[in-house]
Amino acid sequence: MTQALMTPASLQAKIPEIFAPWIIAMDLRVIEVLPGEVLLSMPVKADYVHVGGVMCGQAAMAAADTAMVLALTAELGEFKPMTTVQLQTSFLRPISSDQVLVRATVLRRGKSLAFGSIDISSPDGKLAVQATTTYALLA
Amino acid sequence: MTQALMTPASLQAKIPEIFAPWIIAMDLRVIEVLPGEVLLSMPVKADYVHVGGVMCGQAAMAAADTAMVLALTAELGEFKPMTTVQLQTSFLRPISSDQVLVRATVLRRGKSLAFGSIDISSPDGKLAVQATTTYALLA
Amino acid sequence: MTQALMTPASLQAKIPEIFAPWIIAMDLRVIEVLPGEVLLSMPVKADYVHVGGVMCGQAAMAAADTAMVLALTAELGEFKPMTTVQLQTSFLRPISSDQVLVRATVLRRGKSLAFGSIDISSPDGKLAVQATTTYALLA
Amino acid sequence: MTQALMTPASLQAKIPEIFAPWIIAMDLRVIEVLPGEVLLSMPVKADYVHVGGVMCGQAAMAAADTAMVLALTAELGEFKPMTTVQLQTSFLRPISSDQVLVRATVLRRGKSLAFGSIDISSPDGKLAVQATTTYALLA
Repeated sequence: MTQALMTPASLQAKIPEIFAPWIIAMDLRVIEVLPGEVLLSMPVKADYVHVGGVMCGQAAMAAADTAMVLALTAELGEFKPMTTVQLQTSFLRPISSDQVLVRATVLRRGKSLAFGSIDISSPDGKLAVQATTTYALLA
Repeated sequence: MTQALMTPASLQAKIPEIFAPWIIAMDLRVIEVLPGEVLLSMPVKADYVHVGGVMCGQAAMAAADTAMVLALTAELGEFKPMTTVQLQTSFLRPISSDQVLVRATVLRRGKSLAFGSIDISSPDGKLAVQATTTYALLA
Repeated sequence: MTQALMTPASLQAKIPEIFAPWIIAMDLRVIEVLPGEVLLSMPVKADYVHVGGVMCGQAAMAAADTAMVLALTAELGEFKPMTTVQLQTSFLRPISSDQVLVRATVLRRGKSLAFGSIDISSPDGKLAVQATTTYALLA
Repeated sequence: MTQALMTPASLQAKIPEIFAPWIIAMDLRVIEVLPGEVLLSMPVKADYVHVGGVMCGQAAMAAADTAMVLALTAELGEFKPMTTVQLQTSFLRPISSDQVLVRATVLRRGKSLAFGSIDISSPDGKLAVQATTTYALLA
């Protein structure tokens, strides 16, 4: 069901077309694209660090949702209208590195609903944030 | 168990002390404080609007998490170290208004864990986003 | 959009028609029916109690899901095919009473998706289990 | 941190000691034990099948929660008191087979909290149900 696979560059080019300026400014980088799966790098900017000295959870949830839109776009071969139905995030470990990796995987793509999973890991490979999500495919 | 109730002004003053600059810049306003409950207003800035013309879900999740920290601070009578364990958000309706109301309620405050619920509504009173969350109280 | 309101008796009569025998055997009782909302009583049978001496979480999740099907049936005025998309349950307090109350509320009923919330409380009124859920309406 | 690895037989023997009779009667079988990971088989009894002709979601949630207790017991090397804090389940595909496989994995085991993931698959290997969960370790 997957169309021609998008490249990291072609998926990267979608970011400024799809997302809100607040998300575009996160400077997520598409590193790898597989069918229904993307790997992004995310800089942990000083702006995301709260009083506890670690990355705020809000930035992690924002990255997770954004990565899943890109994984579904990769799966569909192009961006199509979609909306997040729900997103559940678990915070396993604090993030104190200056960069994280965000991997989003489509677990199932149905006609109107899609399910996915997102792992956010620190550079040492430790899983820091784990999310699961449901999307509605609108067209 | 609740100490002297915080006022909207005293809770508002905590925002720049607690949160990451990225969250402080959201300009959330504390409107009402009750024991274990806060009501915030949130401006839907152009920066949060994505290609679909509505507020991005990432901004809603960020507001939900932030509001719960404030509700727990109100419940505790002061800010104490805490961390989000998990946050589940459901997106019921798109948000196209230029402001939303965010109500966070502590459902249960135990010794080391607290549970809460967050409702984000448009000015016409319709529930747009509903979240539930678990926090770990660290001190 | 709601059709003629179902009564507790008419909704009770649906239970053996809709659910699996394993769920029918839970002996849930419909106490109250409002538009998009039902209140059930649930006996905490010895079969549901685990080594810790309290009701197992599995029984709470089963009751939550079942109650939401009934709330949606009440909302629709009749049973129609539907399926649970996701259900998130938080366990706030252990249940050691011999009965609990289960209240399920439809938060939003769209064309193809519905969202709901379920509270399970002990007889003293304390919230013990809180769940939120998304359903797909299939017809 | 893991003690001597439990065998499928030793973990199987824990089931009647730990769980409620309602869960013991599900006849889950421990097939494989790895550190922080277990694989179970679950018979899809006629009792779990609802009017739609497929396994009810309640049975899937019950199996997921049960499997995670066993995975944590395997991780700890023995059963210790624990309680489910939250469990989020997504239903990706209906289950019409007469058996499913349930794999539970500990994603992180901290001092007081543990996080896990559970996959329920049909015999053809297709992922049918996906759950994530947080547990509190009480001792």
